[in-house]
Amino acid sequence: MSNFGFLHLRVVNAYEVAFREARSAVGAGAVIGSAVEYPSVAEAIADCSLVVGTTSIGNRQLQHPLRRLEYGARLVRRALATQRVALLFGSEKFGLSNEDLSWCHWLIRIPTREKHGSMNLGQAVAVCLYELIRCPVAAKPEARKPAPSGEIDRLTEYLLDALREAGYPRTLSTPAKIRRTIRRLNLPEQDAEAWMGMLRQIVWKLKHTP
Amino acid sequence: MSNFGFLHLRVVNAYEVAFREARSAVGAGAVIGSAVEYPSVAEAIADCSLVVGTTSIGNRQLQHPLRRLEYGARLVRRALATQRVALLFGSEKFGLSNEDLSWCHWLIRIPTREKHGSMNLGQAVAVCLYELIRCPVAAKPEARKPAPSGEIDRLTEYLLDALREAGYPRTLSTPAKIRRTIRRLNLPEQDAEAWMGMLRQIVWKLKHTP
Repeated sequence: MSNFGFLHLRVVNAYEVAFREARSAVGAGAVIGSAVEYPSVAEAIADCSLVVGTTSIGNRQLQHPLRRLEYGARLVRRALATQRVALLFGSEKFGLSNEDLSWCHWLIRIPTREKHGSMNLGQAVAVCLYELIRCPVAAKPEARKPAPSGEIDRLTEYLLDALREAGYPRTLSTPAKIRRTIRRLNLPEQDAEAWMGMLRQIVWKLKHTP
Repeated sequence: MSNFGFLHLRVVNAYEVAFREARSAVGAGAVIGSAVEYPSVAEAIADCSLVVGTTSIGNRQLQHPLRRLEYGARLVRRALATQRVALLFGSEKFGLSNEDLSWCHWLIRIPTREKHGSMNLGQAVAVCLYELIRCPVAAKPEARKPAPSGEIDRLTEYLLDALREAGYPRTLSTPAKIRRTIRRLNLPEQDAEAWMGMLRQIVWKLKHTP
């Protein structure tokens, strides 16, 4: 919850001992510390306008509209703009009971494979909250500044120099072929510099070896 | 892993005691049972053409292209069509070392909030694998068959009947207003039938009460 910025935990009918002794994950102490206990689902969700349950379906015959997480999360995000929304999770062992589910407007299921539907509670929560905060337009990678062409040319010259000094047979590879080979590396600027340094040193050593 | 259909776990330099005693989650025994141990990252990933590391960044200065999970997963999916891909996770406590990271082609980060970047290992794995299998085109909800208009009309008649029998003042609500109120409920077929049953009973009782 804390990783994805969801800070309001409400716990219904907690097993007192386990709850009081619960140690939060690193950095998430505030969420456990401010968790509020309720004796019933009805009281825990009384101030929410939308209540969404979670289920792995299993054998239960559902009486609710069931939405895949990818779609359901979109509706939850839209609702969150104007309303308070509760996302309801059941116990690790039994999930939500039919009684619990009757408080929900609709249900979400994580698209697990059919043969293994039931998920670990903490992982199910992480996946649902991640879907809520994920950026629909996939983020572009941080730009790697590519090396300018002139620098690649200098690098190519160093390599040709080194091959010449090392007695590499020209018949094996023409300069044009080597130029293409180097361009295919798509070197970022800082890597081009590093390669230049290595080759310069190699060329120097080759030229000064009797 | 098992929930999302990833069945090949490779463990590098495992802490023998903990690994041997590890009990899998319900239904995931096959993944642990078939896990293969390797003494080094190099050996574990030798047959993979793409190696993607995971990081919460923290304070480390990264020497790799870093991609948000939403975008990186797209590249991984594309690669998976033709290659074997390794997704590398570090230990719960320390993550991947710089030495570990040097085997990676690039890195992925889960978009956690800045104030709380470090994630529980199991949850991080679940979120990454979910992103790999999630359906980019959000699934539509399973269709709720809406009640046909004729049925809604019969329902409206029952309600009007009940209101009449109960002495509800006509001045408070015209039949047209009540018709609109009921249409706004967007009742699915099976709910319309249930409401019809309830109203029929109420009307019957009202008519047979002296």
